[in-house]
Amino acid sequence: MPELRKSPILERWVIISTERGKRPDDYKREKPSLKGGFCPFCTGNEDKTPKEVLAYRDPHTLPNEKGWKVRVVPNKFPALQIEGDLAKSADGIYDKMRGVGAHEVLIESPDHTKNLQHLPVDHIESVFWALRERCIDLKKDSRFKYILIFKNWGEDAGASLEHSHMQLIATPIIPKRAIEELNGAKFHYKLKERCIYCDILKQEIREAKRVIYQNDNFIAIAPYAARFPYETWVLPLKHVASFENTPSGCFHSLADIMKNVLLRIDSALDAPPFNVIIHSTPCGEPDLDYYHWHIEIMPKLTRVAGFEWGSGFYINPTPPEDAAEVLRNIDVSSLEEINRETEKVEEN
Amino acid sequence: MPELRKSPILERWVIISTERGKRPDDYKREKPSLKGGFCPFCTGNEDKTPKEVLAYRDPHTLPNEKGWKVRVVPNKFPALQIEGDLAKSADGIYDKMRGVGAHEVLIESPDHTKNLQHLPVDHIESVFWALRERCIDLKKDSRFKYILIFKNWGEDAGASLEHSHMQLIATPIIPKRAIEELNGAKFHYKLKERCIYCDILKQEIREAKRVIYQNDNFIAIAPYAARFPYETWVLPLKHVASFENTPSGCFHSLADIMKNVLLRIDSALDAPPFNVIIHSTPCGEPDLDYYHWHIEIMPKLTRVAGFEWGSGFYINPTPPEDAAEVLRNIDVSSLEEINRETEKVEEN
Repeated sequence: MPELRKSPILERWVIISTERGKRPDDYKREKPSLKGGFCPFCTGNEDKTPKEVLAYRDPHTLPNEKGWKVRVVPNKFPALQIEGDLAKSADGIYDKMRGVGAHEVLIESPDHTKNLQHLPVDHIESVFWALRERCIDLKKDSRFKYILIFKNWGEDAGASLEHSHMQLIATPIIPKRAIEELNGAKFHYKLKERCIYCDILKQEIREAKRVIYQNDNFIAIAPYAARFPYETWVLPLKHVASFENTPSGCFHSLADIMKNVLLRIDSALDAPPFNVIIHSTPCGEPDLDYYHWHIEIMPKLTRVAGFEWGSGFYINPTPPEDAAEVLRNIDVSSLEEINRETEKVEEN
Repeated sequence: MPELRKSPILERWVIISTERGKRPDDYKREKPSLKGGFCPFCTGNEDKTPKEVLAYRDPHTLPNEKGWKVRVVPNKFPALQIEGDLAKSADGIYDKMRGVGAHEVLIESPDHTKNLQHLPVDHIESVFWALRERCIDLKKDSRFKYILIFKNWGEDAGASLEHSHMQLIATPIIPKRAIEELNGAKFHYKLKERCIYCDILKQEIREAKRVIYQNDNFIAIAPYAARFPYETWVLPLKHVASFENTPSGCFHSLADIMKNVLLRIDSALDAPPFNVIIHSTPCGEPDLDYYHWHIEIMPKLTRVAGFEWGSGFYINPTPPEDAAEVLRNIDVSSLEEINRETEKVEEN
């Protein structure tokens, strides 16, 4: 019998279709090979992107030249544009405004062949520091209401370039999905004076069956009402409302858990395409008692069809308990070994 | 400069990125060829599906045998199951219920090679009559709160079988997306005592720039805040809240406009994968003053990526005015000519 589960935060129901109960092998597809060709994100091609707004680079190297480790540039084809004011206006019964915003790209490493999880933990930590720095800077612009940080990897997850990167989009309105999460969390707080995510963490740690991995400061779980097979959430163990307010001592843990979890997903599902989305507070509200920032990782294994579009509820053929068990049982130390070997070979 | 447009009904914003301004050719992909192989929906294979719950068939033919024109069967792999009660329960802070519901498949014709729009108008009308009949029957079951009717065509739109079909899913809760639409429409009605869809139609007919096609009883428009390129809505011109309450005299018009619009989309975009979703009222509320049933057609031309998942707002690279112009200017009479020719050849 399938089970209907409600998101504890959103008015969203998911059909967990236990009888289909798909195992990892049911989702395996051909591992995409690198297509190569010219890449504007590769080192040496710094002049093919707009000028960098931030880079962590070797001392004695110049901006927009070689020598960087992490690099942030404006998107060459931005969804929103930085100049001008919003010019909000009516169009009969409709409402519109100019598409003012910012759209930046964070290039995770100079190496075309490496995804985020293949980088050393220290390097991944730098990626998150750079995201934080850009996030804080963009939040200073009073026209922006929300900074959305995400990563698309693989063509099926919407990535148009294969060189691993993340994106920041600053929007002049708070996106619908963020409003819904904030409202859901606020409602719980009003009833109970507690953060709903903190409550979720307590139950998940007690029950353990949906926990994938945990370190000193973060935990990775398969959410109770997961929309997608192998959907994984990473949350700070201690309440922090916004990504940028994460205590500096926790960034190493954050890099560790992201590497760890993404390696598990890679191993279980043969390097699937995936999306990573940072869920955080709107601009100007970094310290909410009722919201708890977190990261949602969604491997793209199924196609979203008419049912999902029309209803906003989802059919997930893999119960999150099964997904968590598979991911939890992967021996990451051996994967890291392989990873280190690869790095050595490349260094030689 | 891109434009941000708000859905007049939902709290949803869309980035209409006018500068990318994609033309139909930018979306063209290889037309998928029929894979063939065994098909449980083809005539002659009636015993390979669960027993039919409805069929329009030649007199003197037996159920579950050849001789049908339109056939409805339970889904062999249902997302929800028909037996039992809901058994709503808590799971700590979470909520769940048993996956009770119905999941039926409407096979549009015995012919594996024909999509809905390739059938004669009378045949398409039968499809809608059959949907109506099943919808009314399912709404009698008090466990069901909503009947979702949709069509996935093409692998990228989530169709797992290539023989053209539609699906009905009866759900024990009103889906999130339907609640949002109903609430948005109710809010407008409270303010103005008018149906928002009727207001939209007035403005669209007056401005004409987003109208694709119109007949006696229906109109097809590119919605103002279209999420997807070439997204098309079909609405009854006169206020009707629910699909099943459409006056019987309008069913021929409905078939005509669906054929017409889908042929235009086929022609402009080279038979793209697409979803069709009927948006109607929940069970037990067929006559709302504030809601107006309609059909949403979404060609699958772009990939939904992290930004859309994380934010619930969408980037549409083709302004709906451009999409409407392209679709409006297609000469459907020539397409219908070709269609008729094909039919004649097949009959011979």
